[in-house]
Amino acid sequence: MKLCNFEAGLNQPFFLIAGPCVIESEQMSLDTAGTLKEITSALGIPFIFKSSFDKANRSSMNSFRGLGLETGLQILEKVKQQIGVPVLTDVHEDTPLAEVAAVVDVMQTPAFLCRQTNFIQSVASHGIPVNIKKGQFMAPWDMDNVVSKAKATGNQQIMVCERGVSFGYNNLVSDMRSLAVMRETGCPVVFDATHSVQLPGGQGNCSGGQREHVPVLARAAMAVGIAGLFMETHPKPEEALSDGPNSWPLHRIKELLEMLISIDKAVKSAPFIETTL
Amino acid sequence: MKLCNFEAGLNQPFFLIAGPCVIESEQMSLDTAGTLKEITSALGIPFIFKSSFDKANRSSMNSFRGLGLETGLQILEKVKQQIGVPVLTDVHEDTPLAEVAAVVDVMQTPAFLCRQTNFIQSVASHGIPVNIKKGQFMAPWDMDNVVSKAKATGNQQIMVCERGVSFGYNNLVSDMRSLAVMRETGCPVVFDATHSVQLPGGQGNCSGGQREHVPVLARAAMAVGIAGLFMETHPKPEEALSDGPNSWPLHRIKELLEMLISIDKAVKSAPFIETTL
Amino acid sequence: MKLCNFEAGLNQPFFLIAGPCVIESEQMSLDTAGTLKEITSALGIPFIFKSSFDKANRSSMNSFRGLGLETGLQILEKVKQQIGVPVLTDVHEDTPLAEVAAVVDVMQTPAFLCRQTNFIQSVASHGIPVNIKKGQFMAPWDMDNVVSKAKATGNQQIMVCERGVSFGYNNLVSDMRSLAVMRETGCPVVFDATHSVQLPGGQGNCSGGQREHVPVLARAAMAVGIAGLFMETHPKPEEALSDGPNSWPLHRIKELLEMLISIDKAVKSAPFIETTL
Amino acid sequence: MKLCNFEAGLNQPFFLIAGPCVIESEQMSLDTAGTLKEITSALGIPFIFKSSFDKANRSSMNSFRGLGLETGLQILEKVKQQIGVPVLTDVHEDTPLAEVAAVVDVMQTPAFLCRQTNFIQSVASHGIPVNIKKGQFMAPWDMDNVVSKAKATGNQQIMVCERGVSFGYNNLVSDMRSLAVMRETGCPVVFDATHSVQLPGGQGNCSGGQREHVPVLARAAMAVGIAGLFMETHPKPEEALSDGPNSWPLHRIKELLEMLISIDKAVKSAPFIETTL
Repeated sequence: MKLCNFEAGLNQPFFLIAGPCVIESEQMSLDTAGTLKEITSALGIPFIFKSSFDKANRSSMNSFRGLGLETGLQILEKVKQQIGVPVLTDVHEDTPLAEVAAVVDVMQTPAFLCRQTNFIQSVASHGIPVNIKKGQFMAPWDMDNVVSKAKATGNQQIMVCERGVSFGYNNLVSDMRSLAVMRETGCPVVFDATHSVQLPGGQGNCSGGQREHVPVLARAAMAVGIAGLFMETHPKPEEALSDGPNSWPLHRIKELLEMLISIDKAVKSAPFIETTL
Repeated sequence: MKLCNFEAGLNQPFFLIAGPCVIESEQMSLDTAGTLKEITSALGIPFIFKSSFDKANRSSMNSFRGLGLETGLQILEKVKQQIGVPVLTDVHEDTPLAEVAAVVDVMQTPAFLCRQTNFIQSVASHGIPVNIKKGQFMAPWDMDNVVSKAKATGNQQIMVCERGVSFGYNNLVSDMRSLAVMRETGCPVVFDATHSVQLPGGQGNCSGGQREHVPVLARAAMAVGIAGLFMETHPKPEEALSDGPNSWPLHRIKELLEMLISIDKAVKSAPFIETTL
Repeated sequence: MKLCNFEAGLNQPFFLIAGPCVIESEQMSLDTAGTLKEITSALGIPFIFKSSFDKANRSSMNSFRGLGLETGLQILEKVKQQIGVPVLTDVHEDTPLAEVAAVVDVMQTPAFLCRQTNFIQSVASHGIPVNIKKGQFMAPWDMDNVVSKAKATGNQQIMVCERGVSFGYNNLVSDMRSLAVMRETGCPVVFDATHSVQLPGGQGNCSGGQREHVPVLARAAMAVGIAGLFMETHPKPEEALSDGPNSWPLHRIKELLEMLISIDKAVKSAPFIETTL
Repeated sequence: MKLCNFEAGLNQPFFLIAGPCVIESEQMSLDTAGTLKEITSALGIPFIFKSSFDKANRSSMNSFRGLGLETGLQILEKVKQQIGVPVLTDVHEDTPLAEVAAVVDVMQTPAFLCRQTNFIQSVASHGIPVNIKKGQFMAPWDMDNVVSKAKATGNQQIMVCERGVSFGYNNLVSDMRSLAVMRETGCPVVFDATHSVQLPGGQGNCSGGQREHVPVLARAAMAVGIAGLFMETHPKPEEALSDGPNSWPLHRIKELLEMLISIDKAVKSAPFIETTL
C-alpha cells in the first residue's frame, strides 16, 4: 500500500510513526520532528510525525488536554512545511474532520472508538490514510468487521494497529499472535510500542507506564513481522504533559531503531514460515 | 437519589430498567412497555422503559441499526404518554442530545464511550439523570474519575452501571466485587444482566450470548446489593433484530422478578456487613 | 448426596465448611470448632470443620507451614471426638493418604493440583467424600473431565469447588456463571468465599486478600444456588499464621450466616429458572 | 551458567530443548533425536533432547499417557548413548526422582506444580540442572520466590521457563514482558514456544493448539532476548499421541531455527537497551 511518500507492507522495511503524545508547543514540535527526521533519514526509515492537539479521553478531567484544534493544526502544518515530513494526528467523534484532513497526511482513530460505526466511516470517507487502533476489548479477528466498515467508504488506505488488550485490571498485555492474525485483514499492521506498556488508570488520576518494556515489545513485534511501528517519544519524558511514564526518550531512539532495523531485515529476508504450513 | 418518579438507592427496593434492545416498531414498543408496566406495578417495582433508536456500534455494518432518531423519539414519546412510564435511551457522540433530552427521562452512555470526557460531560450537562455504563476495559475504581467528570457539570443524578469486563477474547466476566466497589462513588449502582452475558464478536459478524446465565447473574448481583437492575427483554428473543441471544423472554420476566424481589428484600433487611468491618 | 451426617444438594439448605486456614494449636482448633458448632447448630446449618496440617504451596519457603501431619491429625481427631463435628483437611501429592483418610471425614484437593490424574484418583480411591477445588487456570466445563477421573475410582461422593479464576496478574475473579456450569457435573457445588478474595502473590512474599469482599461474594454465590459454602475464619485474623488478609473474623460469622440463610431460602424456594428455559 | 556440555546465558547463542512431547517408541525417539542432532550441530545450536515417559496431567483420563517410567528411562538412556546428546524429561510429584536423575541431564517441573514447595525442593536437591516452568496462574515476578526455594537446596543450576499465562477460558497469552522480568531472577530464561500456543481443554477431552503461531511466538521471544528455546516437534504431528495440534513438524524445524539464529544474533549483538535506562 502506498502511504504518504513511500510503500508500506511486509515486503518493505518498517516505517515509523513517532512524536510527542501531545503538542506541547510549536518549538518543541519542530525540534522533535527535526531530530526524528534527521535520525530516520540517516537510517533509511520512512517516517511520519505524530502529535495530538487534544487528548479527549484522559483518565481525569484535570489533566492537560492540549492546545486545541486550531493551534494544533497550525503547528502540524508548520512541521509539515518546515521539516518536510508527513504528519498524523488522532481524531475524535466531535472533531471537525474536514479541517483536520485538509492538513494532515494520516488520521488515526482511538482504540476506545474502534466499534463506533459512524465515526470509523466518517473518518475513512475523507479519503486519506487511516490508522485504526484495535480496541483494548477486542479480539484480533474482530478487526475484520472494522476494516470492512472503513473500506466500504471506498478508502482502501486503511492500517490496523495493536496497542494491547485488557488483562485483568489496570494492565494490558500485547498478544503477539494478534499481529499475525491482523495481517489477514490485508491491511498494513502497525504495532504501538508505547501505549502497549501503559497501565491504564494505574496511578489513580492518570495512567502509569513501564517504559523499560518499550524496547522489549518493539523487538518482539518486529520479529513477528509488521509493516510499521508507532512510538511516542519526548525529549524529557519525565516532564511530558501526557503519557510521560510510557514515552521513549528521544535521545535513545536512534539506538533502539538501529536494533529494530537489524531484526526487521532478518525477519523479512524470507517468507513468514507460518504462512507456508 | 430522586430518579424519575421514585427514590433510588440501597435503602429502597430495586428499580428496573427494561425493554427491547432496539425499537423495532411502534406497536411492539407499546405492547412490551404495557406488559412490563402491568407486571412491575403489580410487583411494586419502579420501572423505566428502555429502547434504542440506533445501535451505533454493531459488530458488522450490515446489522440492523434501528428506525433512526426521529421515528425513535416519536415512539418513545408515545410510550411515555400512552403507557405512562418514564423512558430511557442510549445516546452516542453524534446524537443531538437536546432533542433526546427533551423527550426521555434518562439518558444512557455506552460502555465503549465511558472514557470520552467531552461526551460524558455533554450528556450530563442536560440536567436529566444519566446511567453511565462502565467500560469493558475499566477497573471499577476507575469509575470515580468518570463520575467526577459527569458531576462537574452540576448534574448530581448520575448512575453507574456494570455490564461485564473483558476476560480473554470474545468473553466477559461479571466481577461481583465491582458492584460493591462502585457503591463508593456515592451513585446508585445498576447491574446490566443481559449485556453481561454477551459473547462480544462471538459469532463472527455479531455478538453471541448466553441467555441461561441472565437469571444467574441477576440473582448474584441482587444479593450483592444494588440500586437498580437493567435487562433487555423481547416477546420473541429468537426473532429480535438485535441482541436476541442475550435477551430475556418477556413471558418469563415476572417469575424472574419475583425471585429477585425476595433476594433484594433479604439483602436490604440489614446493613451490608462489609461496610461495618 | 449423603455427606457426613447430612444430605447435601440443591434441594437442601447449604452446608458450611469452615475453620482456620492452618492448625495453629490444639486449643485454638478446639475453641474455634466449638464456637462454630454452637453457631451452626443454633442456625440449623450442617457443619464440617476445616483446617490444614501443612500448607504445601506457600508463596515463600519462609512462611509458616503448619504443625505437620502427625500433630495435625491428632488435633483433628480430638476436634472430631471432643466437639463432635466432622472434619476436613486438604491433602497433597506426598501426603500419606491412608493415614489422613483414617481420621478425617472429607479430603480436599488443592486447586493447583486439580489436573494431576494420579493424585485425584489416589485421593478419590480412599472412598471418603472429596472436595475438588477447581484450578485457577481452568474453565468450569473442564471440571467434567476431572470429575470423571475421580468417579472412575468408584467413589461417587465428589464435590466441586470454585475458588476464583486467574484474572490478569495477582488477582482472581469469581465468575458466578461457573457455579451454574459446574452444577452440570451432577456433583454438589461448593463456593470458597475466602480464597476467592485472595490476591495471589500480591504482597511479594505472600498473598494479599480483600476480606471486605468475602460477604459480597458469599451472598452472590448463595443467590446463584450452591450446595455448600467454604470459608476460612479466625478468632483474630490479623494474627493468623496463614491467609490472615482473606480470613473472615470468627465473631462476625453468625451475622453473615444469618444473611446467607435468608438468601439461600429465597433462592431454593423455586426451581432455578435457568434450568427451565 | 554451565548447562550440560555448554554455556547458557544471554551472552551466548540460544540453546534448544526439543523432541516429541511423549516417548512413543524407541525407534521414533532415536530417529527424532538423530535428526535434531544433525540439524543443530550443523547450525551450531547447543541441543538437549526432550521427551516424557508419562503425561501425568492429561485433560482426560482416557488419553495416552506414555510408556511408563522404566521403558521411558531405558529409551532416554539409549538416546543419550547412541545419539550422544544430553536428555531432559519432566517429573511429577510421584516420580522416583533419584532413578530419573541417574539417567537424564536435566529435569523439568510442570507448570501446574510450580507452587509445590516440597516438590520443587526435592527435584532441585538432586543437583542436576532443573528447568522450572512458570505456572499459567503466576505473575513473572512471582518466580523469584520459586527460584529461592529451588536454590535453597544448594543447586544453582536453575532455569525458568515461560509457557503462557491464563487469558480467559481455554486460552493462554504469552506476555513477552515476562521474559524480561524473569531475567531478573539471574537464571537462564527459556521460552516454550509450543505449549504457549495450546488452547487448554479447548477440544473438550483434550487441549487444542495453534501450530501456526509457534514461529510467531518463537521469533518474538528470540527478539526479547532469551537463553534457550523449548519446542516440541514430531515427524508427523497429525499422528502424535499427545499435543499434536501444537507440535512443530520436524521437517520444518531447520528452516525455523535458521531464522531464529539470525534474530538471536542481531539481538545479542548489543546490550539490551532496557537494562541501560
